[in-house]
Amino acid sequence: MRPDHSGSLLGASAFSIEERDAVYRAISTRRDVRSEFLPDAIPDDVVERLLTAAHHAPSVGFMQPWNFILVRDDKVKEAAWQAFDRANREAGEMFNGERRQLYRSLKLEGIRAAPLSICVTCDPDRCGDIVLGRTHNRRMDSYSTVCAVQNLWLAARAEGVGVGWVSIFHEADIKEILGVPERVEIVAWLCVGYVDKLYDQPELAVKGWRQRLPLKQLVFSDRWENSRD
Amino acid sequence: MRPDHSGSLLGASAFSIEERDAVYRAISTRRDVRSEFLPDAIPDDVVERLLTAAHHAPSVGFMQPWNFILVRDDKVKEAAWQAFDRANREAGEMFNGERRQLYRSLKLEGIRAAPLSICVTCDPDRCGDIVLGRTHNRRMDSYSTVCAVQNLWLAARAEGVGVGWVSIFHEADIKEILGVPERVEIVAWLCVGYVDKLYDQPELAVKGWRQRLPLKQLVFSDRWENSRD
Repeated sequence: MRPDHSGSLLGASAFSIEERDAVYRAISTRRDVRSEFLPDAIPDDVVERLLTAAHHAPSVGFMQPWNFILVRDDKVKEAAWQAFDRANREAGEMFNGERRQLYRSLKLEGIRAAPLSICVTCDPDRCGDIVLGRTHNRRMDSYSTVCAVQNLWLAARAEGVGVGWVSIFHEADIKEILGVPERVEIVAWLCVGYVDKLYDQPELAVKGWRQRLPLKQLVFSDRWENSRD
Repeated sequence: MRPDHSGSLLGASAFSIEERDAVYRAISTRRDVRSEFLPDAIPDDVVERLLTAAHHAPSVGFMQPWNFILVRDDKVKEAAWQAFDRANREAGEMFNGERRQLYRSLKLEGIRAAPLSICVTCDPDRCGDIVLGRTHNRRMDSYSTVCAVQNLWLAARAEGVGVGWVSIFHEADIKEILGVPERVEIVAWLCVGYVDKLYDQPELAVKGWRQRLPLKQLVFSDRWENSRD
């Protein structure tokens, strides 16, 4: 006889319109923050709520492959900024002409300005080699970790806290700075701090780098490139 | 002279406690749904809101690499289920003894029961080879797409809609079924439908597969394995 788990199935309590709209407001007004960080420390209870939100992300096989390294030490932040700066100079060289000029004018991180950084990692060995749901897609553990990042980001918006995801660095540099083992992946370096101003559109759109695509052209019906209309 | 973008910087309007708690409720009560789907069709305006939420995810270089294939055709769903079933039998063989028995007793998808599936893909060529923020981490476009999945999932919770992420299939099978080009990655197959019941804890915990880890042991301070205390 199969065990009876029906006692754990509860009513999926509905959201009011106001609650629903709050979720949509977090989603639509969330920004990648680079320059607007205020220096105020984030209280421990707020940090705990952000981490708890991250920890409630879906994970493949309930693997929970994530770790969170809270970085407040200025020396560590400075080393991370140096790693960013080195990579960012390399990145600038990859663009040409006006694009290169525009690239170099953009501020792409807030590592030293944000009072807190959170390095989010993925440990592929968290529960053995064979993981439910990862058997046919080895990337699923990283993807679970990204879900944790996005949960944290939305929770932060609701707390008045801005987050910026820095991805311009050589992974080996950050691993060395933080002493992260070889097997563990650095998924994100997040700059975290209170904000009182946010861009009304993504900063890269405001600054002319790239505009939002029409959603309509990204949605297909039953088959690739089958328009819905 | 640098252009002045300050007109696009607006006050980061605060969330009320009730609004903040609504965001946390979506995060903490979201579940990976496999068996609780109701057959009711999801109205177009609700689908549109879910896709708009996904489309407002952060993306590297504002690349927006995602596409959404809405699958309602029963023949397409049946083919996807066959692809799942084949892979799932392979997966079952990878576990041993009691674990194998438990694995085989778990329902891991709702492809045929959910009225809608959404295949979420990532096109790495959406805006050329050199992408701002992807220069030092080629996975960033997939990670952006995962952020879109998580946005959709949380929005769905607020709409009373359940989502289940299916990852057990050979990517090539789904690409063939949907006619997805070689260069494009299948990031997620999402089963989507209204739910009136949800597990109070992740289903894999309820069914004894794996339990939630204590958050405390996942958080470090300034360096890997540096405890916060």
